[in-house]
Amino acid sequence: MSESGYGKLVNLGQEVQLVADTQALLGWDQEVLMPSKGLDYRGRQMAWFSGWVHDRQTDPRVGEWIEEAEAGTSDHTDEVTRANLREWKHSFERETKLPRRLVEEFALAQVHAKSAWADARGKSEFSIFAPHLEKLVALCKEQAECWGYLDTPYDGLLDKFERGASTARLTETLNGLRKELIPIVEEATSGERFDRTCLEGHYPIEKQKAFNHEVAESMGFDFEAGRIDTAVHPFCSGMAPHDTRLTTRYDEADFLSSLFGVLHEAGHGLYEQGLKGELRGQPVGNAVSLGIHESQSRLWENHVGRSRAFWEKWLPEAAEYFPHLASVDVDMMYRAVNQANLSYIRVESDEVTYDLHVLLRFEIEKLIFSGDLSIEEIPEAWNSRFESYFGLPVEEDASGCLQDIHWSLGIFGYFPTYSLGNINAAHLAAAARSDAAVKSAMDAGDYSSLREWMRARIHQRGSILMPDDLIVEATGKPADATALINHLRDRYLPGS
Amino acid sequence: MSESGYGKLVNLGQEVQLVADTQALLGWDQEVLMPSKGLDYRGRQMAWFSGWVHDRQTDPRVGEWIEEAEAGTSDHTDEVTRANLREWKHSFERETKLPRRLVEEFALAQVHAKSAWADARGKSEFSIFAPHLEKLVALCKEQAECWGYLDTPYDGLLDKFERGASTARLTETLNGLRKELIPIVEEATSGERFDRTCLEGHYPIEKQKAFNHEVAESMGFDFEAGRIDTAVHPFCSGMAPHDTRLTTRYDEADFLSSLFGVLHEAGHGLYEQGLKGELRGQPVGNAVSLGIHESQSRLWENHVGRSRAFWEKWLPEAAEYFPHLASVDVDMMYRAVNQANLSYIRVESDEVTYDLHVLLRFEIEKLIFSGDLSIEEIPEAWNSRFESYFGLPVEEDASGCLQDIHWSLGIFGYFPTYSLGNINAAHLAAAARSDAAVKSAMDAGDYSSLREWMRARIHQRGSILMPDDLIVEATGKPADATALINHLRDRYLPGS
Repeated sequence: MSESGYGKLVNLGQEVQLVADTQALLGWDQEVLMPSKGLDYRGRQMAWFSGWVHDRQTDPRVGEWIEEAEAGTSDHTDEVTRANLREWKHSFERETKLPRRLVEEFALAQVHAKSAWADARGKSEFSIFAPHLEKLVALCKEQAECWGYLDTPYDGLLDKFERGASTARLTETLNGLRKELIPIVEEATSGERFDRTCLEGHYPIEKQKAFNHEVAESMGFDFEAGRIDTAVHPFCSGMAPHDTRLTTRYDEADFLSSLFGVLHEAGHGLYEQGLKGELRGQPVGNAVSLGIHESQSRLWENHVGRSRAFWEKWLPEAAEYFPHLASVDVDMMYRAVNQANLSYIRVESDEVTYDLHVLLRFEIEKLIFSGDLSIEEIPEAWNSRFESYFGLPVEEDASGCLQDIHWSLGIFGYFPTYSLGNINAAHLAAAARSDAAVKSAMDAGDYSSLREWMRARIHQRGSILMPDDLIVEATGKPADATALINHLRDRYLPGS
Repeated sequence: MSESGYGKLVNLGQEVQLVADTQALLGWDQEVLMPSKGLDYRGRQMAWFSGWVHDRQTDPRVGEWIEEAEAGTSDHTDEVTRANLREWKHSFERETKLPRRLVEEFALAQVHAKSAWADARGKSEFSIFAPHLEKLVALCKEQAECWGYLDTPYDGLLDKFERGASTARLTETLNGLRKELIPIVEEATSGERFDRTCLEGHYPIEKQKAFNHEVAESMGFDFEAGRIDTAVHPFCSGMAPHDTRLTTRYDEADFLSSLFGVLHEAGHGLYEQGLKGELRGQPVGNAVSLGIHESQSRLWENHVGRSRAFWEKWLPEAAEYFPHLASVDVDMMYRAVNQANLSYIRVESDEVTYDLHVLLRFEIEKLIFSGDLSIEEIPEAWNSRFESYFGLPVEEDASGCLQDIHWSLGIFGYFPTYSLGNINAAHLAAAARSDAAVKSAMDAGDYSSLREWMRARIHQRGSILMPDDLIVEATGKPADATALINHLRDRYLPGS
């Protein structure tokens, strides 16, 4: 008996995944290790792999296999089969709309833009990055035209990161969030600021690494199936069923910078390690969306790492590594990690101002793709908008529109998923804490039951459900900003 | 006009090289970074890539393109074109004799054997490695049967590493070398031994790294196109035109271990960095053989790194990093790095006993492939032979037949190229030093003219000539052991 269409799709998916995972190693290596002169050749490698994957995914037989497999389904078909078919069909439809030339050109442009961005950021010179950004925006507009869209090309791009999202709905969500945030931000940033003098000291990198390792291990991150390395911009790459790599960056004057990088990325890493490895290569074996992925990282970074219980457990350990912390108590530490600041850098910002940073880039991106903002106008648009939101003049682009890596990867439409992640994280955390056992363990600094709650309800469910449905299944109701706002009020305005 | 057969072969070669170079990154990563649980999936990736490369290389059109290209050649065809055709033809003939199944199975077996070997070596338990070795030997015998051979399957394997080599000729060369070495070894190991107490002390790894970096940089190793990392077994991987990676290993009680690892691997690295990058993907852009590759590593390790001039330059630098070396003088250092020892570990052995280690494994390999030695008999055969050559009882397999990584990579027929490398290194060094400018620079601790001599005559020539012809072109005569024996006599028996 010859193999069914469904079986052929499974086999093809595994082969494509194997190759795409190798491409992920090429990308990771470029960020973490590759010598600078290796760039041109790496670009050619990335382009080749993108082209190969595209060819396989758009093979006309794939369409026939999907039809054959669909014909064999009924109301009784199991959820895994149905989800795989749903995703195969969606990706086949999108992928076949792209010409191979565009796919290769995009991969090649990314490699060079990433390097130019790092250079531009280092020198704080937007003009170094501008031509690469111009190129990537043009390629992304072309992609959006191929895919088609509802109202704006930006809609077409969003779908890459958040299945089912639209610009209109996200705008509504984020504007609603902003309205609620503004008064909290105002009050939280107006009081007496925490004096960080008590934290000043030298934090040797080797000791930070050892401390971070201990924290990540206690979270349940499996170091036999993962690593932590150093990179300019922290990220997580799940490049094989048992190979998930995190990066962070070190500041010898501030151990919190690398630690929160690790907490965040290890949250992503637990999701990757929690996926069903035996399903790798099938859509259901993949993470479902960035809004869900980000919920896991923000959960560990904020709901765990910025909680009092966390520091009750970890401050004494930290003081073993960094003896000058012996004079700091839990209350001081809690205030230090929850000080609201109007500041320049998103990834270093506190929880309450974070979404304002996201909103700003979301607005700039929308303007770029509606054609209302040219590349050269970006720094000016960024800076004036930033000053009106944060009351601070932007003095250099490195702390402004150049601060984040995403544009250099040709990633537009990704940013709003950060705010979705915050909303989802608070919503999921509230649901998990409504389980008395999870709550009492968390309050005692034990997060294993929280991790298992997420593993069963989120990680292991892969892409079986669409993001919104997954949240409803896990928590009993759709996510909205209520839990996030409640959480921020509790944390930042405890007296009110 | 459609592209010529030759043009198609160039394009295909570039594509295959791009993919094979990616596979090299997968292999390097496995040795240096990959988390242990990533092994199974990495095995599948390696097998997939091997299969893909095999398919492309054995496409029947390749044979047609070669015929077409050959028909267009004449006595006036340039040497690059002729060499490419010679190598394409040779590799097409060999590759098409292998079934795809064998290629994939071999790649998969390598990945698992490599990991089992590291485990077996750590625990000094041959039995952990034995089933993997059994499998690899069987696969290599099958390869040799596919390829065909002159006298023994071992002939078929040799050609992978040294074009034109035969078991009979190598046996004659190595036995001849042994005869000359024995009296030198006897005399060199019988005198008063150098007392290493003066070198005892703590050598922090970070300082060793900094010192090694400085030495490698002064050799001309380009760190914008390369790196040095840490691995159990030192190796060099040239994985892109401008991406050559070395590894070494560190002993906090002995800085010479990591330093000589770097000198050796950076010698390989200079060869890789010295190839013509614009020819990558064409045979002429590749290193020609291991016997030539090894000549470059042994040149820098021995003819440079163990010379008095080297230490006149570098001992004061070393004492900056490791202050207790201030009490050591150049004469002491020279004696320390040139002390002849009957010892267990090849890679740590001195120049004069080194080839006895090689000969031992060469003899064991020949017995395995002639069918006269079963896998389980290897430790016993190794140990008794070792004791008769070195007068030392082997107390654990980790210092015996498990010491080297090669078998775990399915590499048989590689070892004799180490001795060819020694012979070639001495022969090339003598020729280079016959140029008065090179000699006087070397004697003053300046090795840039030596490097440029090799770059022009060896590195940049790639695979244009066969190994023997390359040596004749570079030095005016074929290599034999004369220069090596003279060199060893000068160094080890200076009074005689």
